[in-house]
Amino acid sequence: MKKSFFLFLPLCLFLNMQCKQADQTNRAEPTKITTKDPLPSWNEAALKQSIVAFVGKVTKEGSPEFLQPSDRIAVFDNDGTLWAEQPVYFQAAFIFDRVKALAPQHPEWKQKQPFKAVLDGDLATALGGGEKSIGALLAATHAGMTDEAFDQIVLDWIKTAKHPTTGKAYTDMVYQPMLELLDYLRANGFKTFIVSGGGIDFMRPWTQQVYGIPAEQVIGSSLKVKYEVVDGKPSLLRLPELNFIDDGPGKPVGIHQHIGKRPVFVAGNSDGDYDMMQYTMTNPLPHFGLLIHHTDATREWAYDRESHIGKLNKGLDDAGKYGWQVVDMAKDWKVVYPGG
Amino acid sequence: MKKSFFLFLPLCLFLNMQCKQADQTNRAEPTKITTKDPLPSWNEAALKQSIVAFVGKVTKEGSPEFLQPSDRIAVFDNDGTLWAEQPVYFQAAFIFDRVKALAPQHPEWKQKQPFKAVLDGDLATALGGGEKSIGALLAATHAGMTDEAFDQIVLDWIKTAKHPTTGKAYTDMVYQPMLELLDYLRANGFKTFIVSGGGIDFMRPWTQQVYGIPAEQVIGSSLKVKYEVVDGKPSLLRLPELNFIDDGPGKPVGIHQHIGKRPVFVAGNSDGDYDMMQYTMTNPLPHFGLLIHHTDATREWAYDRESHIGKLNKGLDDAGKYGWQVVDMAKDWKVVYPGG
Repeated sequence: MKKSFFLFLPLCLFLNMQCKQADQTNRAEPTKITTKDPLPSWNEAALKQSIVAFVGKVTKEGSPEFLQPSDRIAVFDNDGTLWAEQPVYFQAAFIFDRVKALAPQHPEWKQKQPFKAVLDGDLATALGGGEKSIGALLAATHAGMTDEAFDQIVLDWIKTAKHPTTGKAYTDMVYQPMLELLDYLRANGFKTFIVSGGGIDFMRPWTQQVYGIPAEQVIGSSLKVKYEVVDGKPSLLRLPELNFIDDGPGKPVGIHQHIGKRPVFVAGNSDGDYDMMQYTMTNPLPHFGLLIHHTDATREWAYDRESHIGKLNKGLDDAGKYGWQVVDMAKDWKVVYPGG
Repeated sequence: MKKSFFLFLPLCLFLNMQCKQADQTNRAEPTKITTKDPLPSWNEAALKQSIVAFVGKVTKEGSPEFLQPSDRIAVFDNDGTLWAEQPVYFQAAFIFDRVKALAPQHPEWKQKQPFKAVLDGDLATALGGGEKSIGALLAATHAGMTDEAFDQIVLDWIKTAKHPTTGKAYTDMVYQPMLELLDYLRANGFKTFIVSGGGIDFMRPWTQQVYGIPAEQVIGSSLKVKYEVVDGKPSLLRLPELNFIDDGPGKPVGIHQHIGKRPVFVAGNSDGDYDMMQYTMTNPLPHFGLLIHHTDATREWAYDRESHIGKLNKGLDDAGKYGWQVVDMAKDWKVVYPGG
């Protein structure tokens, strides 16, 4: 269950990564929808038709499969489902950038692991300590400040950081077809939620602007916080202690804690999403599931069963058993990122 | 911090309590609003005017105090703020009713504490074991089943149980002025949340119908749950282990975990609400706070500093310091419950 925080830094892929900074805005304008087609970036194929058919039947009053608006709960994984996740989860890039940014205030890091290794680009050593190393990196970069201070750090980073191979802002590496799907579901009375193994407070500062999903509809892994009045100012202090891991069987638990209802629509891409997909696809109410299969080495990445990031085995094996639809990214998506 | 689960069964008050069951619906029709006044059950006094003035200025575009809709987060305590809480928190009545209902399946309870004492009406002994006794009662009544089974038990109880002194259904002991306030805020673009020390899963099955607040906007204390496939059926099993206590300094923490934003509107009634009121009243954005002071021994109850339930000291002492408005229930409310 702890894999999301502790395995999100795959060595083999990270070693080629460089982080460039630039002063640019954090999201390209989404491709304009100029026709009445609510999903213009999806190719006309069986999968798109099945989405439209599902939404049509559950929103048609009098239909035997009509869903009350209060039951229209849609949950989306984030990494690899709403935005890219290669060559490393983008939150890992944030962590390493933070270590570099904070290093001048910590001269001792030059001699202290795992920080020395991060600064030297020697990730093998940085992660040699396993959970202990990652814990130290999280404590140094995600804790020891108020929630509001952390929000600002995330916002500053997301506005300026660039992906090492595409050169794009990370928030320009969201999937245009999924932005359209989110809009389409909301226009049909669905409430859209993120259910991610990533850090809840790493996502919340920008999900409204990027996905149209407000902070209160984001579920993720978290550190503990403590309420305390510091110098007369009531604050939430971020502690270097894990609170909840929202991954694998933790995802249905996170959904229960935050939403309190079994979803009717789910989208995921890796085996970390398997449990929430299974949970949704066994809802007695009408339901629908999408599994994003990364098949597009040209426009994005192609990976599944052997990948260090987004490993996908059970999700492919059990698509027939549970009835989720497998998105073939290369065939089903006209464009990948906003702007084509 | 653990007071909500462990102190909600005050002996002195509970001893006179009897639980009657009847087959009736669970909520009287709210008093009809026949004028354009959005708060007809509030007397025309300074307090009502201050609510209307606040909502007016923060929703008027161009006003220096205009709040973006996404910032309009309103949080409400439940026990003593949205519904009554005397002579015991209503969830305590549920627990004792459940013990009585389950007793035939547990003949050993006749000899086993704390169950024997509950069945004998000897609450002094039932609670003599403190946390251990309460833990045993929670385990027997709130855990060991799926989330969906528990929801149904709560719904069945809330539809039929009656308050020992008023004879009303518990959901008819909600406060009409507060129902109007919830509606008024929502009509002005506020998102309304419950933030209660009570059990989150005890409230969620009925808050939409009674308050217009959906399950996903309810925050409360919780037990741990575990995701497990039992006989091929993916389920969430309720475990006899505390997950989170949403009371006192836990309330701002619960708000952070679930909402991720500092509220701009808060209502509470006891010192268990003090921290979330302080947290809201120090929001740099325009904000408003209400403290419900139970002053009406005729229509409801009168209690504050010495009460076993809803003890209120700091909330009264610091109203001037933080600027929350104190509702004098006897003077400010035209009616208390729906139907007058």
